[in-house]
Amino acid sequence: MGKIILTGDRPTGKLHVGHYVGSLRRRVELQNSGEFDKIYIMIADAQALTDNADNPEKVRQNILEVALDYLSCGLDPEKSTIFIQSQIPELCELSFYYMNLVTVSRLQRNPTVKSEIQMRNFEASIPVGFFTYPISQAADITAFKATTVPVGEDQMPMIEQTQEIVHKFNTVYGEALVQPKIMLPENDSCRRLPGIDGKAKMSKSLGNCIYLSEEPDEIKKKVMSMYTDPDHIKITDPGKIEGNTVFTYLDAFCQPEHFERYLPDYANLDELKAHYQRGGLGDVKVKKFLNNVLQETLEPIRNRRKELEKDIPAIYEMLKKGSEEAEKVAAQTLADVKAAMKINYFDDLDLIRSQAERYGK
Amino acid sequence: MGKIILTGDRPTGKLHVGHYVGSLRRRVELQNSGEFDKIYIMIADAQALTDNADNPEKVRQNILEVALDYLSCGLDPEKSTIFIQSQIPELCELSFYYMNLVTVSRLQRNPTVKSEIQMRNFEASIPVGFFTYPISQAADITAFKATTVPVGEDQMPMIEQTQEIVHKFNTVYGEALVQPKIMLPENDSCRRLPGIDGKAKMSKSLGNCIYLSEEPDEIKKKVMSMYTDPDHIKITDPGKIEGNTVFTYLDAFCQPEHFERYLPDYANLDELKAHYQRGGLGDVKVKKFLNNVLQETLEPIRNRRKELEKDIPAIYEMLKKGSEEAEKVAAQTLADVKAAMKINYFDDLDLIRSQAERYGK
Repeated sequence: MGKIILTGDRPTGKLHVGHYVGSLRRRVELQNSGEFDKIYIMIADAQALTDNADNPEKVRQNILEVALDYLSCGLDPEKSTIFIQSQIPELCELSFYYMNLVTVSRLQRNPTVKSEIQMRNFEASIPVGFFTYPISQAADITAFKATTVPVGEDQMPMIEQTQEIVHKFNTVYGEALVQPKIMLPENDSCRRLPGIDGKAKMSKSLGNCIYLSEEPDEIKKKVMSMYTDPDHIKITDPGKIEGNTVFTYLDAFCQPEHFERYLPDYANLDELKAHYQRGGLGDVKVKKFLNNVLQETLEPIRNRRKELEKDIPAIYEMLKKGSEEAEKVAAQTLADVKAAMKINYFDDLDLIRSQAERYGK
Repeated sequence: MGKIILTGDRPTGKLHVGHYVGSLRRRVELQNSGEFDKIYIMIADAQALTDNADNPEKVRQNILEVALDYLSCGLDPEKSTIFIQSQIPELCELSFYYMNLVTVSRLQRNPTVKSEIQMRNFEASIPVGFFTYPISQAADITAFKATTVPVGEDQMPMIEQTQEIVHKFNTVYGEALVQPKIMLPENDSCRRLPGIDGKAKMSKSLGNCIYLSEEPDEIKKKVMSMYTDPDHIKITDPGKIEGNTVFTYLDAFCQPEHFERYLPDYANLDELKAHYQRGGLGDVKVKKFLNNVLQETLEPIRNRRKELEKDIPAIYEMLKKGSEEAEKVAAQTLADVKAAMKINYFDDLDLIRSQAERYGK
């Protein structure tokens, strides 16, 4: 049994730097580390439909965007299997049977579901598909016998739900499922990146994201308009680092070599921060530095994307191949699951024989 | 568009006379009426697992029993498609997408689900699969484009749930699903038959059922022990008909010709009832008559069953063929559904072309 990763994203928009910092960058590292036998990356269109049922067009259009963003960042279909969730019917079957192993009240207690319900203002009208998506997620993870699920801390309750389902299934029907482990971000700077307005969450509707495919002048405009310390009015004023979006982004993106190239007066981020805190360092200078850092990071991604955009059918071809590959694996798991549950009647010669004998008496 | 029936049973035990009166007898009539273009009869093992998740063996063993009972009663695989629910993976996929169109609070309001939850003492620990089975039932019905669903009055809220889902789906995604109609029993005697102890519900655990495959002496024993009117102590006492199980069974089973054969002193059931009510007619006499009626009804069913039991593999062969046939139809519906939702990306040349053009600019 190898080490297997399952991860992915809902295709509800182009990916932004928050995705990059929170998961994509690490995903590429893990892919290239050689430490994993298989990496499955799922474009979770079916999950996106659980709260976008009346707007399938949005989901449909964004599958391509997410795939382009994936490849632009360095995910490689030769090393990772990139697939579309809805193209793997086995996931629905697994969900269906797992639903018998979870109670309604257990789902109601799930903190992630609770907070996501609040975020979406669902309250009284939660779609059943959304309510049950922790179970669907268990299907996604177990279908590929994933051992490792890299997610943020806020997703821990989801993985715990999967672990409970696996334990219950294996106890009731016999060991057919692999128990997955959560893989948390290595450090704080991989946590959720705030929007450029300092709001906790980047969101298309708030217009506060920097997309991976953003053009250079747009990146600059967004960086220069970033939320900093509202009390840092004159350059000579001491400035705050906490809650200062520009520094949060620098924490996430800047490397020592960036100072050599763009801000040689400082050896590293700590020195820059110290100067800002004691006063005498203007926001514009720090923003220009962040702009340089971001431009350097995003340029190769954007350029790769432009190359990829020249052959859209090839992207679909890649997704189709990935989905076919993924389906084979999921089909094997489903066969294991059905055999464990003994609902593979027509293949079950013992069942037919024993019943025939019983009636033969 | 033809007239199509979808109906079925959960395989949790052999079928009994309650099933016969409540649905099977009529199902055979409908089958033989020639009025329907297709009749799909589903052995609902997946649904049975929603509240028997920890006892799949019970469900597994009873699929054969139900199939034998079906054929013994006159259901004919040449005229009706008899299939096993779990063998049609498309049903899970349909359920999965329908779950986005129903809210949690809508399911909570479903009176059938409410009363079934109570019946099973689930309350705080309702399995999600059980809670959502009205949605799964909508998948069953719509997968076969059923126009007609013959059920008891207690199941009306279930069909209403299906109708809501169909309406919502067709409104959101475009007309892909057929709106089914409920077909209620024609008269009171087709309502739920009580157990022989007078309890409302026949149940294996209460030991109050007469099975379709019951042996003659067992039938007699059960009829002779039936609950009647507890105040009808002496033969001369006036007796009550209401709540008198023997008369409820006679309502359901006896025909005028039975009087000629077994009780020629009376022209029909009304005369027998009148005598019982005014006093002077003993329970034993009425029970013996009911026994004769039941024996006559059940004998050919039992005999056909004994013939069928000689070749169990043939029953599985029939179920396999039926399931393959059913799957073809469900697969077509699922393809229609996915096309309506536009999640058939790889077949969607317009999508790929339009996106390629957009990026070509």
